[in-house]
This record gives sequence, C-alpha cells and structure tokens, in this order.
Amino acid sequence: MKEPNPVAEGNALPHVVILGAGFAGLTAAQGLARARCRITLIDRRNYHLFQPLLYQVATAALSPAEIAVPIRSILRKQKNVSVLMGRVQGIDRTRRLVMVDQSEVSYDQLIVATGARHGYFGHDDWEAVAPGLKKIDDATQIRRQLLLAFEQAESTSDQELRKALLTFVVIGGGPTGVELAGAIAELARQALVEDFREIDPSQARIVLVEAGSRLLAAFPESLSRAAFAALTELGVEVLLGQAVTNCSSEGVCLGSLEIPSRSVIWAAGVAASPAARWLGCERDRAGRAIVGADLSLPNSPEIFVIGDTASVMSDGRPVPGLAPAAKQMGAYVAKVLLARVNGKEPPPAFRYKHLGSLATIGRQKAVADFGRLQLRGRLAWFLWGIVHVIFLIGVRSRVQVALQWLWAYATYERGARLITSPGSSGD
Amino acid sequence: MKEPNPVAEGNALPHVVILGAGFAGLTAAQGLARARCRITLIDRRNYHLFQPLLYQVATAALSPAEIAVPIRSILRKQKNVSVLMGRVQGIDRTRRLVMVDQSEVSYDQLIVATGARHGYFGHDDWEAVAPGLKKIDDATQIRRQLLLAFEQAESTSDQELRKALLTFVVIGGGPTGVELAGAIAELARQALVEDFREIDPSQARIVLVEAGSRLLAAFPESLSRAAFAALTELGVEVLLGQAVTNCSSEGVCLGSLEIPSRSVIWAAGVAASPAARWLGCERDRAGRAIVGADLSLPNSPEIFVIGDTASVMSDGRPVPGLAPAAKQMGAYVAKVLLARVNGKEPPPAFRYKHLGSLATIGRQKAVADFGRLQLRGRLAWFLWGIVHVIFLIGVRSRVQVALQWLWAYATYERGARLITSPGSSGD
Repeated sequence: MKEPNPVAEGNALPHVVILGAGFAGLTAAQGLARARCRITLIDRRNYHLFQPLLYQVATAALSPAEIAVPIRSILRKQKNVSVLMGRVQGIDRTRRLVMVDQSEVSYDQLIVATGARHGYFGHDDWEAVAPGLKKIDDATQIRRQLLLAFEQAESTSDQELRKALLTFVVIGGGPTGVELAGAIAELARQALVEDFREIDPSQARIVLVEAGSRLLAAFPESLSRAAFAALTELGVEVLLGQAVTNCSSEGVCLGSLEIPSRSVIWAAGVAASPAARWLGCERDRAGRAIVGADLSLPNSPEIFVIGDTASVMSDGRPVPGLAPAAKQMGAYVAKVLLARVNGKEPPPAFRYKHLGSLATIGRQKAVADFGRLQLRGRLAWFLWGIVHVIFLIGVRSRVQVALQWLWAYATYERGARLITSPGSSGD
Repeated sequence: MKEPNPVAEGNALPHVVILGAGFAGLTAAQGLARARCRITLIDRRNYHLFQPLLYQVATAALSPAEIAVPIRSILRKQKNVSVLMGRVQGIDRTRRLVMVDQSEVSYDQLIVATGARHGYFGHDDWEAVAPGLKKIDDATQIRRQLLLAFEQAESTSDQELRKALLTFVVIGGGPTGVELAGAIAELARQALVEDFREIDPSQARIVLVEAGSRLLAAFPESLSRAAFAALTELGVEVLLGQAVTNCSSEGVCLGSLEIPSRSVIWAAGVAASPAARWLGCERDRAGRAIVGADLSLPNSPEIFVIGDTASVMSDGRPVPGLAPAAKQMGAYVAKVLLARVNGKEPPPAFRYKHLGSLATIGRQKAVADFGRLQLRGRLAWFLWGIVHVIFLIGVRSRVQVALQWLWAYATYERGARLITSPGSSGD
C-alpha cells in the first residue's frame, strides 16, 4: 500500500473507463499498467471467466472456481485501476457518461468490451428450452439439467419418457458444440456408467446438429472429417446440413424429423451484447458495433469497441470471435491510448494474427490447425491441454485444472457432479 | 457388473429403506453391505455433504464440489443399494409406505436419517434476513452476501450504509458460529485487504453474539476462554449473555443495543427435520423423534430414527448432534438389522462414545478437547486439519482440500471468491 496511487493524484489524469473484464477488457486494463491515467474497470460479475473451459463445468469435470478468478485479485497490484461491480444501463456519448446501476461514471476514453451472448436467429423463445453456454450460471444450470435427466430416467418406469430423458441434443457444430457433445458422451459412457441400477447410462443418445455441411467450419476440411470420425466413435450421432425448425420442452424438430429430448443445449448463433444499441452506432447483422482500423468508432476517437462486441476487418477478412483475437484487440487499444497519453504517434491499423485453432473431442482426441501444421489425435489432445492450462490466469487455477484432468484421466471420474442451485432444492 | 446383484433376486429379500444420505444414513447403508437385503437410499440431493466444512464454502475458502461427493459414486460397488433422488412427502406407518414425490416406496425396515435444520425459536420470519448454514445453497448464498457487501461498500459514498455493509453479525457461539466468525475475520483482514481502493476491508466489524455465558458451551471452560481470546485477537467482537430480540434487513437488536448490518448469519438453534411429524411419534422440544435404547420407535421395531433427527439418551445424557454421533448410530442400526436378517441376538443398547471435540478459530488457532487431554493453539489447529482431511470421503476430496489449505496458508488467498447464482445475475 506504499506505492504511489495515481488515483489519489486526482482528476488531472485522463479517466479511462473499460466495460467488461473478459479477455479483451482485462488485457486492455493490463496493457495500461504503466500509463498515466486513472482506469475504472466495470463488470457485472466479480470474476474473470476463462470461457473456453466453461463446457467442462457444464459437464461436471471442473468446478466454477477453477476457471474463474476475482477481477480484484488479478489487478490487485495495478494501483491505477479501480474495479467496480455493476451493470451498465446505457451510455451517453454527448455527456461522456456511462450509466451503471443507479449512478453515472464519466469518462475521457471509453473501451467497450461487453462480449457476446447466444443468438437464436429470431426465435428468442427457444432460449428457455435450449440454454446457451456463456456464463457460469448457464454452466451450472446445464450441469443440473444433464445430471437430473439421468436421475429422473432412473426413477421413472415410463419407457418413452426415459428415452427422451436419455437423449441429449447439442445444436451447433462449432468448437463449443463439438466439445460439449464429446464431453456429454464421455460423461454417460464412462463417468456414470456404473452408478445406476435401472438404466444403463451408456445407452444415452447424444445428437449433434449442424446446419452447415461440416463440423468446425473454421478448420480445414480434413480436420472437420477427423472430428466427425472421433465423435462417431464416441457414439455421438452427428447430423449435418440439418436446420432446427423448432425447439420445445418436448424436444427438437429438424423439418419433419422429431427428436424427443429433455436436454437441448444451444451452441449455434452468437449475438453481441447490447453495446451497439447503447452507443447508437452502426452495427452488423449479429449486432456488433462496426469500428474503424484503430478499433474506435467512426467520428468518436474516444470510444473503442473490442472483443466479441466489435465487428472488425483485418486483411480484408472478419476477425473471428476467439479469445486470442479479443486479447490482441485489448493489447492494441492499450497501445493506442498509451501513445495518446504520451503524445506519441498512434500505432498502425489493427491486424489480427491467427495463432491457430484447437478443439478437443474426448479422451486423447482433438484437432489442431496451425496453418501448414495440422494435428489430430493424441498429440493434438495433449497440446490442447497444455495450451489451456498455460492460458489460465493464476497459478492456483493452473494447478487445480491440471490435477483435475490428471485425476479424470486416471479414474474416468468427474469431479463436480453436483445438482445445485435454488432451482433444484426448494427450501 | 459381473457380481451377483441381490436386487435382481427379487422381492424375497427384506427391503430396507433409508431416508437421508448424511453421515447417519450413509453409514447405515454401508454397514449393510454384506446383509442379505435390498436397500433403497433416498435423498433429495444427489450428493453426500461433509457438513463440518460447509462454513469454508460460505467464506470462499473451498468450492462446493470439494466437500460433496455423489451418493451414487460412494455406493457404486455396493450392489444391494439403489439410490433414489427424491423428496420425501410423508410416511404411512400402517401400510409401510414412504411417499416420495409422486410415487410410493414400500419398506420392511425403515431408517429415518433426514437431519436437522436451523431453529429460530419461534421467529421463523428471521430466516429470510439471517440465513442458516446447513446446505450447499445456504453456503453459496452466504458467500454471495458476504462478498457483495464488500463490493457495495466500495461503490457507495453513503458512510452510514458503508458501515452497515461492513458489519457482519454471527448469531450463536457454538462451533459453527465460532468458526464462521473467525473465517469472516480472516477473509476481511487477510484475503481481501489489498483488493479495494475506496474501502479498507480490514476495518470490517465482525460481531459474534452468544446468549449463554460462554462460547463453545460443550467444551471445558478453559477452552471457551481460549476461543474467546483467539477471536478477540482476530478482531472479532464477542458479545456474551446477549439474546437477539430482533433481526431485520437493517440489522440486529440485542435488547436496546442495535447493530446496523446487512449480513447476519444464524448459527444458533437447531430444529429436526419434519420426520417426527411424518411418523406421528413423540418428539422433544427441538422436534426430534424420541427413540428407544435400540434407536427404534416404541412399538414399531421396524422403524429406526437416527442422527440429528433422533432424540437419544446414552449413559443418562443426551447424545450431541455431531457427525461422529450420527455415524455411530448408523453403524449401530446396521448391526441391529444384520442380526435380524441373520436370526441372531440383537446387540446391546446403543451407547454413544465421545471421541472428542474440535473447533478452529483461524490461522494456527484451534481448541481440542479429548477429556483429559486438552489442546489449544497450533497443535490443536494442525490436528483439526488432519482429522477433517482424514474424515472426508474419497481421495479426490482429501487431496483437493489439503491442497487448498496449503495454498491458503502460503498465500493468505481464498480459492472460491465467486458471486454466483441467479440472484446475482439477472439474465
């Protein structure tokens, strides 16, 4: 507490307000560690979430606290940052104010990094029956639903109902959908297999639905085929070129094909947070704010939009909604602001550098694409694990996740098979 | 799956139904592993909870999954047990039926071990503002409330409100209250101390209220004094001989003394589960079923009540509501049933064997009472840790909890500082 506290130096320093402590917002805040400015980082949660592993919370392999770190702890030593837990209600560009809960926070520079949520292509009523997976509460809700389905199947004698309870449908064949379907298959066929007396969890039906012609559309075709083969081997039914025409509490319809199911998970469309609406700026079809080459809004150089909230072109192609892209944008904007604060030349236009794509399917199976180098199978799986452990924030999370994985690998067990939260208790 | 499955042998075997998979019910089930009977273990949760460490979940030191193990996993290899997740609605003694959700389960022998909840001495309206700590959902709710209090104190400029937010009141000076108050003090003074900019968490006021004349009434007086001294050193205000006259969302009243607080935790009275009402049997003031020397109901040798649900005398003294007592009762009833199944003499009347009492107050501080041997300070603290790790169920939980404690000891950090659950999100 002896270090000089720039906040105490008063309002003379420019005030940078960052909305969202995901990969983009957090990296921006950290990139400004040595900048002569006051930073206020606002998030409606008290933790930074490592979203790429959220599907492992949903499938009972990891506990929430293992992939979530308090934002305040991460930034404890960076004295020019104040963290504020609150919900953004809107932005007043004219008065340069952010409305947070009942109060107003004024800014000199604003970085908007509020992420994305699931998009249901105009069928918002599907959200209640086919939850997406973006937040910890989503993950514990899906975990509860998956585990309860097995419990209810065990206790019912209605064979039709039992079949529907043991049918799990994942919609969307991108990395999240592929990883979820694989993890659910492993949960049923390995972790739960000996725990029931009336049902055989290994008979559970897991269906992965993708509207496009192949899985993992962002990967090379050979890896899409490898993912398809690996999922099929795990007993996942992969339905390609099939669009969902209806979701209800009874199941899913793909045109005339009906799949009775009590557990449908949405891993398909993405819609940006309402940030573009708050800003009243131009947006793309997914609701993302369209920004310029330096990631600021046209005609508003003091407002940046980054991460999944922004629609950005790099080398003539859209920047994908991946964690490394969000981090690169956060680091870039920090550089722009540093140059401004120090009266230097701004850096050249933002360019996205693709570091590679990874997706895991199950035990010893994964695909990795690094341009010329493409991997599949055990080596890709091992690499996937190493990369994810390295990018976790904090030694504690790394140790915990690594130990959970080693344990699961050795025993086939899952570490967090709890049905919790008010929905399931009742008193 | 090749072992003979007694359940498949049909209804010829006596059917033992156990209600509740806490320490008492689980031990009873395990004690019947070699008995020629069918067992159905019914619990409304899918996990067995190690309740003695629940206060560490409430104070962000442990994750729920670290002290909760799926009941099915524990009993996976014991093929004469079926686990049923469901909520007991009532018991029909005449027809020998248990009503579970919408179905009926018939029994030949019934073991009721549904535990206890908090008693508010006739002030049930206090429960909403002064939650107790019996379930995982209680613990995550209290964790949310504690952590949110610091967040809200940081963002308000109302000094009165800030003071109330930073005042934490624990009601009840038994082991749970003492351990909670100590853990909250450490959370404020150590784990959070550098994470805020506007408030100084170490200035938080922690008050422990006890109506009796000393803390830890079940311990020898010298250890009560040691606990008092250790708590005071941690900065906890201990108020003895003070009864709570009102609880509200504004705080607590002790007669004319008002303590404004937004976080009040109830660790005082205990009330048995409604089991005695279901059974329509005689009960004591706390609602516990009064049982005979073999723990069965008078005139109903086929019904046993054990654990915190039972009012039992041993050597002329009431058996305390502790985990070891619950386990001893579970093991005893299993022996009675084994003798019945095998047509042998029943064992002599139940006798409780007190193994000792332990309570921890904070870093390197605890008290331990083993009759002639009484310990306090570092040695008692070390013993407390060892004993709790040993009694946890499963190697995984033991390793996880031991590592969390070592980590916390080395860094003063807390591993699970998450504000989660629907209450805090909103979408």
